[in-house]
Amino acid sequence: MERDILKRSERNIIEYINNVLGFTADRDVVKGIGDDCAVLRKDSSSCILLTTDTLVAGVHFDLAWHPPLLLGRKAGAVNLSDIAAMGGEPRFALLNVAFPGSAPTWLDDFLAGFHEILQEHDTHLVGGDTVKSSSDISITVTIIGEAAEDNICYRSGTVTGDLVFVSGSLGDAAAGLDLCRSGMPGDDIEQWQQLRNAHLDPQPQVQLGRLLAESGQVHAMMDISDGLATDLAHICAASGVGAEIYKDSLPVSQQLNSAASTLGKPFLDWILKGGEDYQLLFTVSPDHEQDLRELVFKKNGREIFCIGKIIDAPGVFLSDGLHREEVSYQGYDHFAE
Amino acid sequence: MERDILKRSERNIIEYINNVLGFTADRDVVKGIGDDCAVLRKDSSSCILLTTDTLVAGVHFDLAWHPPLLLGRKAGAVNLSDIAAMGGEPRFALLNVAFPGSAPTWLDDFLAGFHEILQEHDTHLVGGDTVKSSSDISITVTIIGEAAEDNICYRSGTVTGDLVFVSGSLGDAAAGLDLCRSGMPGDDIEQWQQLRNAHLDPQPQVQLGRLLAESGQVHAMMDISDGLATDLAHICAASGVGAEIYKDSLPVSQQLNSAASTLGKPFLDWILKGGEDYQLLFTVSPDHEQDLRELVFKKNGREIFCIGKIIDAPGVFLSDGLHREEVSYQGYDHFAE
Repeated sequence: MERDILKRSERNIIEYINNVLGFTADRDVVKGIGDDCAVLRKDSSSCILLTTDTLVAGVHFDLAWHPPLLLGRKAGAVNLSDIAAMGGEPRFALLNVAFPGSAPTWLDDFLAGFHEILQEHDTHLVGGDTVKSSSDISITVTIIGEAAEDNICYRSGTVTGDLVFVSGSLGDAAAGLDLCRSGMPGDDIEQWQQLRNAHLDPQPQVQLGRLLAESGQVHAMMDISDGLATDLAHICAASGVGAEIYKDSLPVSQQLNSAASTLGKPFLDWILKGGEDYQLLFTVSPDHEQDLRELVFKKNGREIFCIGKIIDAPGVFLSDGLHREEVSYQGYDHFAE
Repeated sequence: MERDILKRSERNIIEYINNVLGFTADRDVVKGIGDDCAVLRKDSSSCILLTTDTLVAGVHFDLAWHPPLLLGRKAGAVNLSDIAAMGGEPRFALLNVAFPGSAPTWLDDFLAGFHEILQEHDTHLVGGDTVKSSSDISITVTIIGEAAEDNICYRSGTVTGDLVFVSGSLGDAAAGLDLCRSGMPGDDIEQWQQLRNAHLDPQPQVQLGRLLAESGQVHAMMDISDGLATDLAHICAASGVGAEIYKDSLPVSQQLNSAASTLGKPFLDWILKGGEDYQLLFTVSPDHEQDLRELVFKKNGREIFCIGKIIDAPGVFLSDGLHREEVSYQGYDHFAE
């Protein structure tokens, strides 16, 4: 057995666990480790989706600026987003919270936020565990969803020539995190409300995910949690292809542009490496591009953004029309020091 | 919304969450919060069982004496035991681990143990999350099981006059924990191998749980995780009855008796208050007692132990034939200081 796996990146740990433990030779495992959700057969036409995430204080959130109500919302949102990324319908939730016994009202507010986001997505809390920790607050949320087997969108399945789409502006959440970290006084930070909200209270794209999955036109899909550079690399690796991103086509909000000037940071870093946007990233054949744009506009009243294309050569490349630079896996890694 | 819930016991926190958030008005929720597993309808005759537990270093286990391989086994076992307690078949597992980046081989051994116990119960790892923590190691395991809806055994359902049974010796795990804590030198502690193993490597009673459930003769069942005094009180509260335990009928291992003399501690404390035995606790009508004993002996080659009876009056009482003492909820509380 290979040692020292803790020195590796999160991606490698997951691969390692999958290789050593992910023995999915069961008739009811449609997809085990390696996508946004595990997919289990429920009956002849429908599947159960399972996703779980752990958030640790001081690593994934900072109690200094993350109000517990919004943190409760976010703990639900990041898992609802995984269900969205497969095109599923969230149904049930489990909540595990470990905390030291020293925060009398913190859990009340956290639970209120968690409750709120579940209700918004018609998802029912059915179990969990509350335990005492010695120091860290740590939160694990598990969401159980459902989807018709034929509609589920995996990371694999895209082919050369497909167009790469995202569902909305990228980089806002990462910029919001930088702003929260900057220690900027309250009055100054007020102007960046949209960016801070993107970090503190992200919106899972559940409705859009289902619409895209049901359209039958999406070849691969996932949500952007670790930054475009890493997440698109996951789709490429799972599908055995590469991708080229067009720098000028990336959807950038006005606030992001303006924060980039103020903080003196290139906004591309936030987009490629920042993560936590929880927008959907998906690929479509050029033949269906127009149909899909129209469907999304008609049903959800929104635009989707083509940011690149799938290519033969492995890797994710950023192109400004003249030069191409490889950016694969430059996103957020939960194990980076 | 009520405040200061962190000052309450774990039982009260769970009740609070259930009252505030456990809105189980969904057609597919057969049982939400409040039993060993959540029960969700899968199809017209079968259900999905869900259970999850969080274990935190320094609270639920001690790295100083818990070898990571056995801890991996135990992290799986305590959840498999919840599936056993409903009479279900474990199918799939999710594993979330948060740890600081400073234990190079710890995770390898932990995963090997987790793998081992899952394999023993034909359960497949299908997902999870590995994240960095700032200090604590914290482990969340979720097990997804299955059961025929008609066979599932709940905590509710027992009636006055039923006999109370357990599947094996009680108190061994709690005594084993005390022995590990005692700092007794290696040579001295060797003689208590059975007690230490009961603490370090408990055996979930999955086969027996299914057999009891399929017998159709069990009125209520749960596993003993928090000590007999607390767990039997859960069954009584859920069923609206009380129970009397016969002190002289409690199954006590020879090692427990001998450890009690050596450590100068009454063995009853370990049995009633200790917890973590992961034996099954269940009730049966006196009319079916003999049938059930014979079935279990024939199919599993083992004995089951009658330790008391269900009574009208609420509360759990310990009786020595002359005196009765109330012991309800005197077991382990994850939030006790």
